[in-house]
Amino acid sequence: MLEPVELSLSEAETLLRSGVTGRVAVSTPQGPHILPVNYSVVGEHVVIRTSPYSILGTHAHRTTVAFETDTFDHERQRGWSVLVRGRAEVINDAATLESIHRIWPPRPWASGQRNLHIGIRLDEVTGRRLGSGWDPVREATVRRIV
Amino acid sequence: MLEPVELSLSEAETLLRSGVTGRVAVSTPQGPHILPVNYSVVGEHVVIRTSPYSILGTHAHRTTVAFETDTFDHERQRGWSVLVRGRAEVINDAATLESIHRIWPPRPWASGQRNLHIGIRLDEVTGRRLGSGWDPVREATVRRIV
Repeated sequence: MLEPVELSLSEAETLLRSGVTGRVAVSTPQGPHILPVNYSVVGEHVVIRTSPYSILGTHAHRTTVAFETDTFDHERQRGWSVLVRGRAEVINDAATLESIHRIWPPRPWASGQRNLHIGIRLDEVTGRRLGSGWDPVREATVRRIV
Repeated sequence: MLEPVELSLSEAETLLRSGVTGRVAVSTPQGPHILPVNYSVVGEHVVIRTSPYSILGTHAHRTTVAFETDTFDHERQRGWSVLVRGRAEVINDAATLESIHRIWPPRPWASGQRNLHIGIRLDEVTGRRLGSGWDPVREATVRRIV
């Protein structure tokens, strides 16, 4: 059986910044929700796009949320996950939005009214890997080139 | 751009029951957490194993939690996700534990003191897919045969 191993902050941040899909957990009066999202890390925030009327648009603003991204290799029974916890806030500042659009042009897979940008501050970044003898940073299958 | 499409309950349940890894979101006094987990659906519950001292072991019992499993194909920009929301409870009943062990022998990837079983009741099961012209049930890459 495999013991999970803590990743260093540097490894966790590298994996986080190379990813494109993850999930956000937000607390609502009816309990927690998990929503799959496309994301980009811009500066010190995980940035996601959503609509103002979505669960995230309604409940995430000015609360602490959790963000997770991971990869599991079922055949080899190994994998890694990175967890971010931090304060979420709607991004309204025009200069910040412009810098986000330079790095991450607005074309999410799922369209609709996804014109609300939410930033999740990297208050806490942790990561774990399962399985020894491999380097999750080197073998990351999806890389964002910016 | 792709519009997300709601899956039928039957499609969502089929994908849910064929999966092996997912994530649980649980509310804590410090905000929500997301934890990657191995799981199995036994009867009308998502069953996960954890340790009594873990975040899930400490905070999930007798609360509403969220569970999510998904697959994204980055190259083809399509994917699906299934979300379960329901009441979580530690499973103590010996007969129930025995029936779980028949279906799902205790050998999680990550070892440690994972002797606590938590069942998440399937109170609410929803699913979505991105991308048309494909069948996520037919193309599920990981299948649990029980």
